Amino acid sequence: MAQTQDKIDELAINTIRTLSIDAIQKANSGHPGTAMDAAPVAYTLWQQFLRYDPKTPHWINRDRFVLSSGHASMLLYSLIHLAGIKAADTAYQKQDGDAVTLADIESFREDGSRCPGHPEYGWTTGVESTTGPLGQGIATSVGMAMAGKWLAATYNKPDFELFDYNVYALCGEGCLMEGVGSEAASVAGHLKLSNLCWIFDNNNVTIDGHTNITFTEDVAKRFEAYGWHVVQVEDANDIEALAGALNEFLATDDAPTIIVVHSHIGYGSPEKHDTPSAHGEPLGPEEVRRTKEFLGFDPDKVFVVPEGVRKHFASHMGRRGADARAKWDALFAEYGRAHPDEAKQIALIGGRDLPEGWDADIPTFDADATGIATREASGKVLNAIAAKVPWIVGGAADVAGSTKVILDYPDAGEFQPYGELGDYSGNNLRYGIREHAMCALVNGMVLSGLRAYDSCYLIFTDYARGAIRLASLMDLPVLHIWTHDSISLGQDGPTHQPVEQLASLRAMPGLVVIRPADANETAEAYRLVLPHKNRPVALVLTRQAVPIFDRSTYAPASGVAKGAYVLADAPDGKPDVILIGTGSEVALCVAARDLLAKDNIAARVVSMPCRELFEEQPEDYRNAVLPPEIAARVTVEEASPLGWDRYAGAGGIVLGMNTFGLSAPLKVVSEHFGFTPEKVAEAAKRTLGR
Amino acid sequence: MAQTQDKIDELAINTIRTLSIDAIQKANSGHPGTAMDAAPVAYTLWQQFLRYDPKTPHWINRDRFVLSSGHASMLLYSLIHLAGIKAADTAYQKQDGDAVTLADIESFREDGSRCPGHPEYGWTTGVESTTGPLGQGIATSVGMAMAGKWLAATYNKPDFELFDYNVYALCGEGCLMEGVGSEAASVAGHLKLSNLCWIFDNNNVTIDGHTNITFTEDVAKRFEAYGWHVVQVEDANDIEALAGALNEFLATDDAPTIIVVHSHIGYGSPEKHDTPSAHGEPLGPEEVRRTKEFLGFDPDKVFVVPEGVRKHFASHMGRRGADARAKWDALFAEYGRAHPDEAKQIALIGGRDLPEGWDADIPTFDADATGIATREASGKVLNAIAAKVPWIVGGAADVAGSTKVILDYPDAGEFQPYGELGDYSGNNLRYGIREHAMCALVNGMVLSGLRAYDSCYLIFTDYARGAIRLASLMDLPVLHIWTHDSISLGQDGPTHQPVEQLASLRAMPGLVVIRPADANETAEAYRLVLPHKNRPVALVLTRQAVPIFDRSTYAPASGVAKGAYVLADAPDGKPDVILIGTGSEVALCVAARDLLAKDNIAARVVSMPCRELFEEQPEDYRNAVLPPEIAARVTVEEASPLGWDRYAGAGGIVLGMNTFGLSAPLKVVSEHFGFTPEKVAEAAKRTLGR
Repeated sequence: MAQTQDKIDELAINTIRTLSIDAIQKANSGHPGTAMDAAPVAYTLWQQFLRYDPKTPHWINRDRFVLSSGHASMLLYSLIHLAGIKAADTAYQKQDGDAVTLADIESFREDGSRCPGHPEYGWTTGVESTTGPLGQGIATSVGMAMAGKWLAATYNKPDFELFDYNVYALCGEGCLMEGVGSEAASVAGHLKLSNLCWIFDNNNVTIDGHTNITFTEDVAKRFEAYGWHVVQVEDANDIEALAGALNEFLATDDAPTIIVVHSHIGYGSPEKHDTPSAHGEPLGPEEVRRTKEFLGFDPDKVFVVPEGVRKHFASHMGRRGADARAKWDALFAEYGRAHPDEAKQIALIGGRDLPEGWDADIPTFDADATGIATREASGKVLNAIAAKVPWIVGGAADVAGSTKVILDYPDAGEFQPYGELGDYSGNNLRYGIREHAMCALVNGMVLSGLRAYDSCYLIFTDYARGAIRLASLMDLPVLHIWTHDSISLGQDGPTHQPVEQLASLRAMPGLVVIRPADANETAEAYRLVLPHKNRPVALVLTRQAVPIFDRSTYAPASGVAKGAYVLADAPDGKPDVILIGTGSEVALCVAARDLLAKDNIAARVVSMPCRELFEEQPEDYRNAVLPPEIAARVTVEEASPLGWDRYAGAGGIVLGMNTFGLSAPLKVVSEHFGFTPEKVAEAAKRTLGR
Repeated sequence: MAQTQDKIDELAINTIRTLSIDAIQKANSGHPGTAMDAAPVAYTLWQQFLRYDPKTPHWINRDRFVLSSGHASMLLYSLIHLAGIKAADTAYQKQDGDAVTLADIESFREDGSRCPGHPEYGWTTGVESTTGPLGQGIATSVGMAMAGKWLAATYNKPDFELFDYNVYALCGEGCLMEGVGSEAASVAGHLKLSNLCWIFDNNNVTIDGHTNITFTEDVAKRFEAYGWHVVQVEDANDIEALAGALNEFLATDDAPTIIVVHSHIGYGSPEKHDTPSAHGEPLGPEEVRRTKEFLGFDPDKVFVVPEGVRKHFASHMGRRGADARAKWDALFAEYGRAHPDEAKQIALIGGRDLPEGWDADIPTFDADATGIATREASGKVLNAIAAKVPWIVGGAADVAGSTKVILDYPDAGEFQPYGELGDYSGNNLRYGIREHAMCALVNGMVLSGLRAYDSCYLIFTDYARGAIRLASLMDLPVLHIWTHDSISLGQDGPTHQPVEQLASLRAMPGLVVIRPADANETAEAYRLVLPHKNRPVALVLTRQAVPIFDRSTYAPASGVAKGAYVLADAPDGKPDVILIGTGSEVALCVAARDLLAKDNIAARVVSMPCRELFEEQPEDYRNAVLPPEIAARVTVEEASPLGWDRYAGAGGIVLGMNTFGLSAPLKVVSEHFGFTPEKVAEAAKRTLGR
């Protein structure tokens, strides 16, 4: 193989390799192969190209590097360490020492180390996105690049090229086999994201063997078909060729670029290079020695950073980054004088803050027995807020008209490459029929400061769980807007009727799932969640109209903030039975309450739009809403009963869906599965033994 | 547009169109656009090519047609009706009249109609797979084609070309945007599935608008990159060109074929053709009239099947299919004499039956305090069974070595195109890092009679839920083998540690989720589920070793069949407290029981490998296992607590995971989250107020 690099470059590259194999060997767990083969690639990118100030990791115009091959985490940790990136907390405010110390590397994959098995955003500064689940990193990088284009189109002014960052993602075969990667690549090509560069570490080996057993497509041609610029690098160790390819990316202004780098997994290991065992197992003590010998390192020493390596990083990547950032700071200061409003917005974006008065125009909805669908209410509220927060961007997976997420305030445009259809400053995104990539793109945009939302029918969140989970794991303030939330969507039938999705989403740590009962609960939900800086939220909304409750009779919708509240009570506050509903089923409970009243049964109706928030309330509040002494309870939700025993208790009845749905008009479906006031009242009577 | 078809062809095509628009108009719900534009395509395929005997829809060598654009269901229902396909039940044994009557069409999207909103396998004969969620149909069709290749390679003999069926799938832009479609296309190209033909109805319109807003890739080039043969048809109404393209598919023997058909959504509707509103809304009464006029139909009449149309279908598709099937029956009879064993196998395949003695070699495992991982046990049991059931095929998403699903009995080979790596008779499939397609391929293979399994880490079922759900919805006996089932996988950390997946899967109707506690429960699980003909099963297995219980001391593992059973009890059968565990946590409960015994607390340990099966037991059995009078209960599962209150009750404690996991060695992880015998014992004491 070509060894065109200088001595110090070679030393630095091999330091990355040896740190990686030492850490993995000591942990006796990890993935050395990619860290070893891709070290020159990542090194060249960081040293010669990445505009990143190690002392200011929160700089908003920094280039982003996403390690989509998250299993090669030691590659990234080695880089962060050698580059001397400083630690900052999640909110990027506080700095305290090195992001990754040598001690962290020595305790790779141990509790407390900043070097967990896979890179975790918010835990280790320098990690731009949590990766590991394949395909997610590259898809997320597309969102980051979209945000870059949006920020540039929105805030750059003549003489103020504030935003011009590039986004790099390193991936392997796995990322390119995963569908989410394909979806994202198609979007990036359509959008002509010239600020996006994927580097494909083409080592031809996966866990189960050579890629010839399953992955023989022509990747370069596929990306050309997506509209990408494709560059080939024949030898991963040829850093001149790598630099040439990266310069070609920089020179390409009308398409994203993929650099296909041909490499040898486990490079440096005499026995294991080019073998699947290099992928996911430590090399073994003997092979570590042999590898170090091959790389010119002392086989008797571990965790060695040779003299000059850190300095070399500092004098190239570090200096370039610091210079660029300082220049930018000066530019931004000047920008603040010329364009104070925009500068203020940029500051808010950096802090995940909202402008004052963001909620001033949130509508309230008049009581109405027929009512409107909560998706309709959502559309109105979303627009009222978005008009005040210009960096709210979003769209749907080809159902924007149906999920009511089109932004139609005067300045909201279409996000498209410059042309007839729109430009990069548009707020309306068109994700296409690509739910999984959609949610990953949103993660990338939110990681870049935008308040981005995704939207689709609740059922198709099944397609996107990989990315939805990462938003939760990263504590991102993502807004999911999911409609057609139950069997009551009617005629589209069981393929489209969610049943298990609500339980599935509630089981996910960190995700706040809100299913509002009417238009005003919908408005309150938005009011509540927008200020969140670290919690993803799923709004789960109806297709069909639901009554708008008369809040002069019933309790105010602000109860949403507590997750559950008493909407309607027994006249003396001492109900015989409690009816607990969510979303559209709250109206059903209210109707059942009226029926029960005719039989002199006093029912309390509890609207429980959000279990997560309810569980966070103090015990006395929870007991006030659901007094333990009242065992007669009925829970009503057109979804899997899983989890409802918690609130129904042993004496209660859970009305839910134990089967898939049915294709028929709404009323027929409701009757068929027993979601009628009569059935709810009947269940209430059963719990009372009447 | 070219109108090269004969008068009767045109009449038949327009009958499909008018039946579709009438049904959708009457239901006031549905998707006319694709049914109208793709009618000539589907018609040409069915009339001139499809080898399908309408009277014998269960013929194992029939060509398959999958409507991947499931929303265009009326297109398929019209074809089934006009072709005169006879009804058969799910098991394809019983026949009783027409699969789709005109009355069914007239009650499209109503309860009881054989024409639900989207096509449902098992409900409507002629529907080869449930479709609607986009991308699933095409991905499933790849599995069907794989099964065809496997059946041919395994059972065809000189002079006996028993299996040579082709698989056709009709799809639109949506299917090609979805990642699952991309994954499946890559697999099909790698496998050179020359019996597979996708027809891409390229009408350039989706729900939200023209595809130029989001889908501008070069589809033809992308498929060439996958190794597909690509044919273009410039005009969907040109049935000569369509026939030419289909003949080109038949002549291609080294690759799958995609035919790109350029069409106009809503063709025939003067106002709505080429518009998004034709996609998913009824045309409206006036436009239905105008369309009928354009198509030469009486605008005053509805649901008209002109004289001669049914006969024309019968004399072409019907006669060709019946002839082919009769010829095949004769061939198969002869085959039965020449190759009786193989013929018997084919009969078993057709009935989803197992050969006698299939379970003869299932091992039992000796008690062992260290034990083995249940994934290890699974691998041994699977191989013992597969060696007796040659049509068990399967593999993993690039983790076969790790999930222990490689078939290594002597005849098990690698499923590959003929060459050095294997051939089409192999039983080991290599899905690649494509979990979603994997599960869809399995659906397709199981729909074709094979007993196919998929396998990956439990966490990555998140990527595949779209297809997992369809297996449940179709009542398919799919076998899912999912390992690395909890935070106890250790160092890979939170991106790889499942938390919410168990609850998510249990919430899915129809899916049987089994998490065995040790090697013998694993063996019992296999014994139990293989004979299932209509239930998908998920085996959820450990990465780490778990003790093999001494069944001379503890209850036999056959208790798995009841979903939950008393593994170890109080000496007098009157426990103070019940410890309920699943999988690896059962051993934890047993250890806690020993600790409690030292404090004179008598604990019962209930192993609950399968909640679904337990819930199906009679109440007295359930009450015997979990006596209602014993309120002191602890449930232990390293997963989301969602759903466990049902068994813990108000007086019990649920030990579960309320957060994501942690990257650290197993023992550290267990300590960190409190999954130790001491903590379980402590919780038990708390429930007892001690």
